[in-house]
Amino acid sequence: MADIIVKNAYVMTMDPDEGDLKNGTVVIEDGKITEIGEKTSESADTVIDAKHSVVMPGLVNTHTHAAMTLFRGYADDLQLADWLEGHIWPAEAKLTAEDVYKGSLLACLEMIRSGTTSFADMYFYMDETAKAVEASGLRASLCHGLIELWNEEKGATDLKEGKRFVRAWQGAADGRIKTMYGPHAPNTCSEEFLAKVREEANRDGAGIHIHLLETEAELLAMKERYGKCSVHLLEDIGFLGPDVLAAHCVWLSDGDIEILGKRGVNVSHNVISNMKLASGIAPVYKMLEKGVNVSLGTDGCASNNNLDLFEEMKTAALLHKVNTFSPTALPARQVLQMGTVNGAKALGTETGMLKVGMKADLIVVDMKKAHLTPCFDVPSHLVYSAKGSDVRTTIVNGKVLMDDYKVLALDEQKVMEDAQKAAEELVTRVNA
Amino acid sequence: MADIIVKNAYVMTMDPDEGDLKNGTVVIEDGKITEIGEKTSESADTVIDAKHSVVMPGLVNTHTHAAMTLFRGYADDLQLADWLEGHIWPAEAKLTAEDVYKGSLLACLEMIRSGTTSFADMYFYMDETAKAVEASGLRASLCHGLIELWNEEKGATDLKEGKRFVRAWQGAADGRIKTMYGPHAPNTCSEEFLAKVREEANRDGAGIHIHLLETEAELLAMKERYGKCSVHLLEDIGFLGPDVLAAHCVWLSDGDIEILGKRGVNVSHNVISNMKLASGIAPVYKMLEKGVNVSLGTDGCASNNNLDLFEEMKTAALLHKVNTFSPTALPARQVLQMGTVNGAKALGTETGMLKVGMKADLIVVDMKKAHLTPCFDVPSHLVYSAKGSDVRTTIVNGKVLMDDYKVLALDEQKVMEDAQKAAEELVTRVNA
Repeated sequence: MADIIVKNAYVMTMDPDEGDLKNGTVVIEDGKITEIGEKTSESADTVIDAKHSVVMPGLVNTHTHAAMTLFRGYADDLQLADWLEGHIWPAEAKLTAEDVYKGSLLACLEMIRSGTTSFADMYFYMDETAKAVEASGLRASLCHGLIELWNEEKGATDLKEGKRFVRAWQGAADGRIKTMYGPHAPNTCSEEFLAKVREEANRDGAGIHIHLLETEAELLAMKERYGKCSVHLLEDIGFLGPDVLAAHCVWLSDGDIEILGKRGVNVSHNVISNMKLASGIAPVYKMLEKGVNVSLGTDGCASNNNLDLFEEMKTAALLHKVNTFSPTALPARQVLQMGTVNGAKALGTETGMLKVGMKADLIVVDMKKAHLTPCFDVPSHLVYSAKGSDVRTTIVNGKVLMDDYKVLALDEQKVMEDAQKAAEELVTRVNA
Repeated sequence: MADIIVKNAYVMTMDPDEGDLKNGTVVIEDGKITEIGEKTSESADTVIDAKHSVVMPGLVNTHTHAAMTLFRGYADDLQLADWLEGHIWPAEAKLTAEDVYKGSLLACLEMIRSGTTSFADMYFYMDETAKAVEASGLRASLCHGLIELWNEEKGATDLKEGKRFVRAWQGAADGRIKTMYGPHAPNTCSEEFLAKVREEANRDGAGIHIHLLETEAELLAMKERYGKCSVHLLEDIGFLGPDVLAAHCVWLSDGDIEILGKRGVNVSHNVISNMKLASGIAPVYKMLEKGVNVSLGTDGCASNNNLDLFEEMKTAALLHKVNTFSPTALPARQVLQMGTVNGAKALGTETGMLKVGMKADLIVVDMKKAHLTPCFDVPSHLVYSAKGSDVRTTIVNGKVLMDDYKVLALDEQKVMEDAQKAAEELVTRVNA
């Protein structure tokens, strides 16, 4: 007997060998997908009738700072320096561990509601984010942010905490949690420190999550300091590899793209954040052409201001069309691949596709809506017309976290109230 | 006794003299707003408790082709010529009057659900769209599209039908319907024809809705034919004025912007359509600086693919930030103004603000959602984090069209089923 059967669904497997089943069934047992087909002879405790719905792999958010939900709408429409130095950093300085827990839990709730089943996170008080992931049922790759700032003592302290976190949580929550090293960026960590982090990551068999060339300011600072850009510096110290997840990658030269492709680096494209902060337009079209594994991230809620990957998919598809003057750039299926398959590859999880033997991270999208009617082409609807709020059911690791719009994994009202209260108290402390 | 009282709401009036009321009440009688304040001594048949919600003017969609909902997702990710000539035009050639009714009704349903209370439309079989507006309770400015193509006979036939429509429906549906003349574009209508349309519009006291410089192809064609661009041609024949609604306006020179500003022309910015079709980026920032009245439009569903103005607001705010490398460009309140006040001005309706004496077109947005928590700044949330699906109640002309997510004005299931069936049959006819 299976655990869950999802039936009567349009099944979009994202598996290139299988394609879509117009009326299919997905069977789940012990957290894994055990059968996909038109019908099944299995029975299960939980049977989900997904009529008028699409079943697809859960979306993967490859770059966020979950606890920053507490800063959602706290500071918008500002110059970058004013935003960071005048608002975000002073508020972060007052964040407590409990705040990070409450903010992370709110992020998990929002992700469950909008169809994201796993995410990559870099922040601090990461034990709290890990606890929120554990409690919410989501899957995540987490790291403690290491900001050395050419201060050897701070570097040593950060790295020690980063290592402790990597070892404490690797494989926790039934394997839903993976840990990584999180050196903040090439312009906030020295060459020597980055090399040391690479060494520690090798020792622990952990991946590395880093911000890379988000802004022109980073590019200019690197050129001034090293006479070369961030990608070339990382290449020269042997930092880059298929276990590296690089967020943003806006200010890349063609040579940089070659290097990222050659080293198998995973790129997290954060299109909305890059637009909102006016950082620039990442050369996604070129990266994809060169075979770079490009996935999607929302970045933190202070620069988005939500965690809805459906918005990220649509905006990416739109921006790169107008930016390349090509209406055929980033077609719907390719964008869906970025949001699922590529994201899962970046996180090294056995998810991102509906395929027998893979972990059961999947979502059910309700297509019986005015804005999804009529329906000629499911991928097109998912990218150009659907919203996170059309996700009716979210399953992670074979467990139903939201069933027909009802969140089972968390006490939704309490999570929202706690976060609202924590945010208000935080602002009171900041303004005190 | 009043008709409707909305209480306990965060009231965003969009009236520069009034600003926001953190806990306010709006009273509606005979289709108009009769009172706004903290409390009221009035009673009413219908009392809406808008706790944890925002009350704001309904959004105004200043350029769409409602019936094209039937082509939602029918043809995406294609080159413009292939999209138009290979897919959209052949399908439009097979559209029946009944199809236009069903497609328009679906559009009205989607707009009610996503908080749009009035729209400007240009298409054909416009009696059907007018009937759908009448039935749905929405407000609209409608016109029959006139595509002369330098064919005198076609021009005469189109103009005759346009005039008939203008006169037949002006002020219909309790004044909710206004009619306009709809010459398609300066590169599809001759100079003489455009001048004639201007004359007829003057005679009937009707406005004019036109596509203007959507594509570089139009700009080049105009330069070749006339040795000047569309804006200069229209200026030279005395076509431009504050009763003109010009959609797109992507390929404008600084001189064109001066002219549009001087003549008080209303511009409909269709950011998502322009991105999806890779038409280009309209100089919105410059237009606003020069005092041009810029509002927002979705364009038809074949190039969007939905009618959600919340998406349009967010995308406009994002695109012009990254395009001008300025994170302070198009701040939230300005974008909200484009979606409400500016749109209402473009349509010449007494709406777009919550103000005593104005028509009661307003929406209630549910803020008790994970992605809208915590809340520091309401305008920021509405632009950067809310979705059309957060609209819980929609009121037009003092009538509740949707109450707490339940659409009262239309039989939602039937509208969707009829549209799905019409679309399927249409495609069968196209492929026959």
